[in-house]
Amino acid sequence: MAVYTKVSAEEIGQFLTRFDVGTLVSAKGIAEGVENSNYLLETTLGKYILTLYEKRVDPADLPFFIALLDHLSERGCLVPPMIADRDGQKIHSLCGRSACLITFLPGVSVSSPTAAQAQATGQALGTMHDALTNFDQERQNSMDHDGWRTLAEQCGPEQLDRIAPGLAKSVAQELDQLDEHWPHDLARSAIHADLFPDNVLMLDDRVTGLIDFYFSCTDIRAYDLAVTHAAWCFSEDGTEFYDDISHALIAGYESTFPLSDAERDALPLLARGAALRFLLTRAYDWINTPADAMVTRKDPQAFLHRLRHYQTHPDIFTS
Amino acid sequence: MAVYTKVSAEEIGQFLTRFDVGTLVSAKGIAEGVENSNYLLETTLGKYILTLYEKRVDPADLPFFIALLDHLSERGCLVPPMIADRDGQKIHSLCGRSACLITFLPGVSVSSPTAAQAQATGQALGTMHDALTNFDQERQNSMDHDGWRTLAEQCGPEQLDRIAPGLAKSVAQELDQLDEHWPHDLARSAIHADLFPDNVLMLDDRVTGLIDFYFSCTDIRAYDLAVTHAAWCFSEDGTEFYDDISHALIAGYESTFPLSDAERDALPLLARGAALRFLLTRAYDWINTPADAMVTRKDPQAFLHRLRHYQTHPDIFTS
Repeated sequence: MAVYTKVSAEEIGQFLTRFDVGTLVSAKGIAEGVENSNYLLETTLGKYILTLYEKRVDPADLPFFIALLDHLSERGCLVPPMIADRDGQKIHSLCGRSACLITFLPGVSVSSPTAAQAQATGQALGTMHDALTNFDQERQNSMDHDGWRTLAEQCGPEQLDRIAPGLAKSVAQELDQLDEHWPHDLARSAIHADLFPDNVLMLDDRVTGLIDFYFSCTDIRAYDLAVTHAAWCFSEDGTEFYDDISHALIAGYESTFPLSDAERDALPLLARGAALRFLLTRAYDWINTPADAMVTRKDPQAFLHRLRHYQTHPDIFTS
Repeated sequence: MAVYTKVSAEEIGQFLTRFDVGTLVSAKGIAEGVENSNYLLETTLGKYILTLYEKRVDPADLPFFIALLDHLSERGCLVPPMIADRDGQKIHSLCGRSACLITFLPGVSVSSPTAAQAQATGQALGTMHDALTNFDQERQNSMDHDGWRTLAEQCGPEQLDRIAPGLAKSVAQELDQLDEHWPHDLARSAIHADLFPDNVLMLDDRVTGLIDFYFSCTDIRAYDLAVTHAAWCFSEDGTEFYDDISHALIAGYESTFPLSDAERDALPLLARGAALRFLLTRAYDWINTPADAMVTRKDPQAFLHRLRHYQTHPDIFTS
């Protein structure tokens, strides 16, 4: 949670002259996400987010993200599209970084979601998937099923076992299971792929925005619901499962975008995949981030607990 | 530049119910200052800053800061007073920290001030000093002239020389000079004591707010102008002096609060003291902050260059 690139008020004021957004009244660096540098701007005409893309976002992916957000926004989904300058440009360069001016959305990210909030989020995810059925741009999921074995190898068995004794073997067995059973005939779509509570803006029980689409990609559509399930239905440390949140999330989703029988049957396995994905990326970051670095390391074991729960309770999606 | 204490949206929403400020619409952790954790809040009624005080601010000093800001605000100075809850309380406890809800002020902090902006800042400082002539609360300056020798000893001669060869001797000589000549008969007052461009909010050439009063204290009043001079009239690395900014700052100050002859005569020495104060505190932080820590270390030599300029150009305040 930090601002990586310092942009002066003079530079921001100059940057805004390319747009029809009024003149700068306030600019605050905000601690949003760990991927980019973000400024919350207020102008004489409104509020905006200025994002400078740091190393984790490939500028070559920005056109996909922009097209996706435009597509969703045009169809009434509450997402923050990038703003075009007077020449129609949405991707800019600022302080040596690719930069976009982005629509500000009200709302806060809840830390302890209620069932009503999970239901609203499920609805919003279903509405988004509905709107994406005719979106045809594609982006490979850099964290997809095919990449998990490589990620595990990059972590290395000794390092995994240092996180939790026996973790390397558990991961290897799960990879074998998923390779054997991973579905290949489910509907694919553009998906958010990272819809944690952090990335949902809410006011009371109402969703006011889905944000942070920088992992969005093309993958099994129901996998997006599985990721959201793994992100929302457990205590942060993964040791407690919340059945009421689980039911509310899925009921909300199905109220706007019903699952097919094949998707519903696949949910237990997709959820195991989602848990393994975050277990592996967190393990990789844990191993490769110094304990005293600027970025707070997230405990991989929170997703090991989730994986164990999905392995031992496949019935949670049907009961 | 970081948020140190994470406060959930639910906790902030609950906290706001103590005040008549509307309900929460948006909350963003902002990277403001290095001292405290700050959130920019938007509610149904307006914008506010929520500050949680980390280790550098002693909660026992908060009543002084609050009284000072109230005094200034009541006299029309553009400063951000703390907001009372329905019971009249301004100091609260949140996530184990002392916390205040603070008035939001528009404006941005400039990085490369113009002479017009320096003049406006001098005016605002003079207006503030005028308003403080009948403010009678006192707080000792923890970084005052009496403390500089101790600070130099805490740094240690070897460590100082590691920052710049010969620095220990230069500091020792300057301390002797200042001890011999430091004025004891100049008017004292509550002062800001840290009025860097970061702490002045502006829109174009107009000051919209003086902020960050957490070093404010009782000291020689003209020393506040000397600190502001050292902060505004040089390039950031201290190697370039801007004569036009210097003249504009002092002319602006005198347009609202004329210096006495004794104060004007003392400015060269007070400015050397100001340069030494920031040289020593930056050296102390440099020595005691790991190079890879979360906080960006500021180069002490930027104020060694300023000190050298003040030593060799005492005429800049009279010519």
